[in-house]
Amino acid sequence: MEPDSVEMERCIDSCLACYRRCVQTAMGHCLEAGGEHVEPRHFRLLVACSELCRTAAHAMLVGVENQKFVCGACSMLCDDCATSCEGMEGMRECARACRQCADSCARMAA
Amino acid sequence: MEPDSVEMERCIDSCLACYRRCVQTAMGHCLEAGGEHVEPRHFRLLVACSELCRTAAHAMLVGVENQKFVCGACSMLCDDCATSCEGMEGMRECARACRQCADSCARMAA
Amino acid sequence: MEPDSVEMERCIDSCLACYRRCVQTAMGHCLEAGGEHVEPRHFRLLVACSELCRTAAHAMLVGVENQKFVCGACSMLCDDCATSCEGMEGMRECARACRQCADSCARMAA
Amino acid sequence: MEPDSVEMERCIDSCLACYRRCVQTAMGHCLEAGGEHVEPRHFRLLVACSELCRTAAHAMLVGVENQKFVCGACSMLCDDCATSCEGMEGMRECARACRQCADSCARMAA
Repeated sequence: MEPDSVEMERCIDSCLACYRRCVQTAMGHCLEAGGEHVEPRHFRLLVACSELCRTAAHAMLVGVENQKFVCGACSMLCDDCATSCEGMEGMRECARACRQCADSCARMAA
Repeated sequence: MEPDSVEMERCIDSCLACYRRCVQTAMGHCLEAGGEHVEPRHFRLLVACSELCRTAAHAMLVGVENQKFVCGACSMLCDDCATSCEGMEGMRECARACRQCADSCARMAA
Repeated sequence: MEPDSVEMERCIDSCLACYRRCVQTAMGHCLEAGGEHVEPRHFRLLVACSELCRTAAHAMLVGVENQKFVCGACSMLCDDCATSCEGMEGMRECARACRQCADSCARMAA
Repeated sequence: MEPDSVEMERCIDSCLACYRRCVQTAMGHCLEAGGEHVEPRHFRLLVACSELCRTAAHAMLVGVENQKFVCGACSMLCDDCATSCEGMEGMRECARACRQCADSCARMAA
């Protein structure tokens, strides 16, 4: 495996980890907690972020050459989602997964 | 429904139509025809394009405000896919669906 | 197109329509309305149903012979989701889309 | 985390691992190797299996109570896919991931 394949495998890891964390947090913690956790803008961001992370991972697994478009979009949505999660109760791990995925995707998109 | 919701519904239509056409063409026509139709670069582009179209539709259905990142990435991948399909036997409708989706997504991303 | 292909195209239509209705209703109406509309069990059912409808459509588009497993599972989840939506304010169209998709998928799974 | 949550986390691991292996194998090894590796029935099974694994993981992450329908369907498709992969050059790891996911999902569906 060439060096950039290693980097891509790590980015796939980050994307799937962020996807998993966002879905579990939204459908578990947020729905149970209610209040600001189901505030539409915040909740939609979590759902859209999880979906795009899953698709960025898919684009890299498919091995299409222009996956950088997808990774670039994913990086921006993850950053927005991290900002929305930060400071909210019980969302620290989710925010961290989003920020890490944003960084990893930004490198793939460069 | 406000005017831009009408435009968004149309873009969701285009994305789902392109998704559907790309998957059916890849898994039906291309696998049956073989040869250049299963050439890795071309085939991967079809698969990645179908996936991103589906996700762009999803982002708009979720109603996240920053769906324009996703639509922008989708527009670029659809254009690449259309170019790859044009001139190949039996791919005219697929190329047309990709080009139409690329245009529609480019307007949403603007 | 043979007769059963026509039936399958209709089932793909029903699945994509149900997917679209469930996502828009959950992320639009339910999040805006709050209360019983974001009650965890109900909301999760809407999300899981939308996802499985999308995947049943995908299995049929891919053209795998054993799509009946997926359609059978989809039919059961759609029926549960319809029952959860019926009687709730603003959920009539969603319940109808679920029931129609359940019927269509049940025929494909038979 | 209760004992059955541990089992479910393991099943999500198996589903995502099988999804990842099937997509990479189909879009990498199979497209590059050609011949029997892009034979329509085999290739479609790989693609449909990867998609349903991803959806079974999603249903468990969402936490819907009736995920057993999805896991049951996934288990059957994974078994079919494993059988199709076994004995083919370069497909041993893919077959193993499918068989492991089939077992894990069968336990969740029981």
